[in-house]
Amino acid sequence: MRQAGRYLPEYQAVRKKHDFLTMIRTPALAAEVTCQPVEILGVDAAILFSDILVVPEAMGMTLSYRDAEGPSFAAPVRDASAVGRLRRIDPSVSLAYALEAIALTKQRLGGRTPLIGFAGAPWTLAAFMVEGKSSHDAREARRMMYRDPGTLTRLLDETAENVILFLRAQAAAGADALQIFDTLAGLLAPEDYRRFGLPQIRHILASLRDIPVPKILFAKGQGSMVEELAAAGADCLSLDWQTDLGAARRAVGDRVALQGNLDPMTLFAPPERIRERVGAMLQGYGKGSGHVGNLGHGVLPDAPVDGVKAFVQAVRELSPSFHS
Amino acid sequence: MRQAGRYLPEYQAVRKKHDFLTMIRTPALAAEVTCQPVEILGVDAAILFSDILVVPEAMGMTLSYRDAEGPSFAAPVRDASAVGRLRRIDPSVSLAYALEAIALTKQRLGGRTPLIGFAGAPWTLAAFMVEGKSSHDAREARRMMYRDPGTLTRLLDETAENVILFLRAQAAAGADALQIFDTLAGLLAPEDYRRFGLPQIRHILASLRDIPVPKILFAKGQGSMVEELAAAGADCLSLDWQTDLGAARRAVGDRVALQGNLDPMTLFAPPERIRERVGAMLQGYGKGSGHVGNLGHGVLPDAPVDGVKAFVQAVRELSPSFHS
Repeated sequence: MRQAGRYLPEYQAVRKKHDFLTMIRTPALAAEVTCQPVEILGVDAAILFSDILVVPEAMGMTLSYRDAEGPSFAAPVRDASAVGRLRRIDPSVSLAYALEAIALTKQRLGGRTPLIGFAGAPWTLAAFMVEGKSSHDAREARRMMYRDPGTLTRLLDETAENVILFLRAQAAAGADALQIFDTLAGLLAPEDYRRFGLPQIRHILASLRDIPVPKILFAKGQGSMVEELAAAGADCLSLDWQTDLGAARRAVGDRVALQGNLDPMTLFAPPERIRERVGAMLQGYGKGSGHVGNLGHGVLPDAPVDGVKAFVQAVRELSPSFHS
Repeated sequence: MRQAGRYLPEYQAVRKKHDFLTMIRTPALAAEVTCQPVEILGVDAAILFSDILVVPEAMGMTLSYRDAEGPSFAAPVRDASAVGRLRRIDPSVSLAYALEAIALTKQRLGGRTPLIGFAGAPWTLAAFMVEGKSSHDAREARRMMYRDPGTLTRLLDETAENVILFLRAQAAAGADALQIFDTLAGLLAPEDYRRFGLPQIRHILASLRDIPVPKILFAKGQGSMVEELAAAGADCLSLDWQTDLGAARRAVGDRVALQGNLDPMTLFAPPERIRERVGAMLQGYGKGSGHVGNLGHGVLPDAPVDGVKAFVQAVRELSPSFHS
């Protein structure tokens, strides 16, 4: 989950001098903020500081970013001809900055922790491309799904091919694990997710089967489909906080590892309550080594650093007894 | 689910002359738009045109409504003293307009269809009261939950008592069924919903057990908890479109009826696709008389009327074969 970010004063210090997209596109800056959580919080892995929208950008869309509104695309993809204009990417050219950031981060980490690379899932990326901006309901993309499913399918398929290329390049550049974020998965009915979400993810994971790094799948809001997600080809499922971790473990057993899943708002609680909730999370998963203690979504911009530290400390202290 | 609204030209005609809150507070206008969907679409039940926030308003909060931003409260409830200032309502006084609207609507319907009354669930109402406005993540309310659970609990309990009073009054005024809307239920982790959502709903339903009208519970985003919801005391569960209707039926059997649950965006599809999806929904529930064909949330403001009609027609035509 997103670790580097506004809640860290050290991040803010860098951000004050550079805008968000510059930070993403400048390997030294991206590597610096990627390593901050490892150095400040003592987490067990770093996740590349980047954005899922770099892939649509590399496909030819013009991305801009304003603090108040977040990311937006100048020209949303609303019809077949717009889909036709999208380019197949060459990550070594259009996403070279991300690959360089990975190489630099690996150097800087010096083996202290693994580095996770990532990409957005086709449905989530397509939803952004169709909307043209952040949207909590992806109305335009869902409208396209019902009115013109053929065009949406072409967009999803083309995006999937680009995600494959980018994830493969990230692994080649040194990423030790790869996470697929389907942040908007939960907007789709199960029937629609089985058609416009899961098949494309299965295709990506099947295409990356030869790469010997763990793959993690986060399909936010589809926790009731945990068994189907577990069969999608990922080694680990990352769960949102609305999913019952214990029930998910019972459903999937040890077929895949499970990551998560405290509500990010938990970090606003006093340390003793954070510790209680971490304990309940670990108890929920139960005995075994297939659990990655984590939040159920990214750290919020205004999360208190002490809360984040209390979370990391509680996982460190309470988890060993579940591993024996 | 919300039926009267902006997608109907006949509603727009009334709305052009009166603002939203005036329409809610004027029984003749509320009754008029409540009956529109029955008259125009031929649905099998009417649901009162009102808003869940009339209860917090009756509890002493100042409600305003602007087209662009939706409803807001002048002074959000952020601490124990603000909770202490909330009033116990007397529906026959502060919500007399809603009760009169029910009586008028019943007259106007003349027995053609039943009328559903409703209220927001304590968690959803409390989230609005704490935020002070619409919020898709209820950050402030969830922060209160983690930081000051005692104050949130007092707010939930007081709200629950007022919801009981209002629902009881609606039944006395003539409502033939009562629906509880927990629209923001899905923001809570299962563990939190079991503490800050469900117990208050169970209390409400237990308190209304003597009222011989069906009670419907809609806990949006908690579909994975369908068995616990089925045991909350409602006669019918209304399901969001992310819940697998077939799986829900298998989980609850015939212990409760199930309502729903097409994605409201389905109405933007061509009529033949709407019909297909209605067929799949009915097939998902299977044989039996315990299914209420419906959407999984309210009709969207820009839904095409022809799509709504195609939905109603498809349910009418395709459902009888499942009843035998």
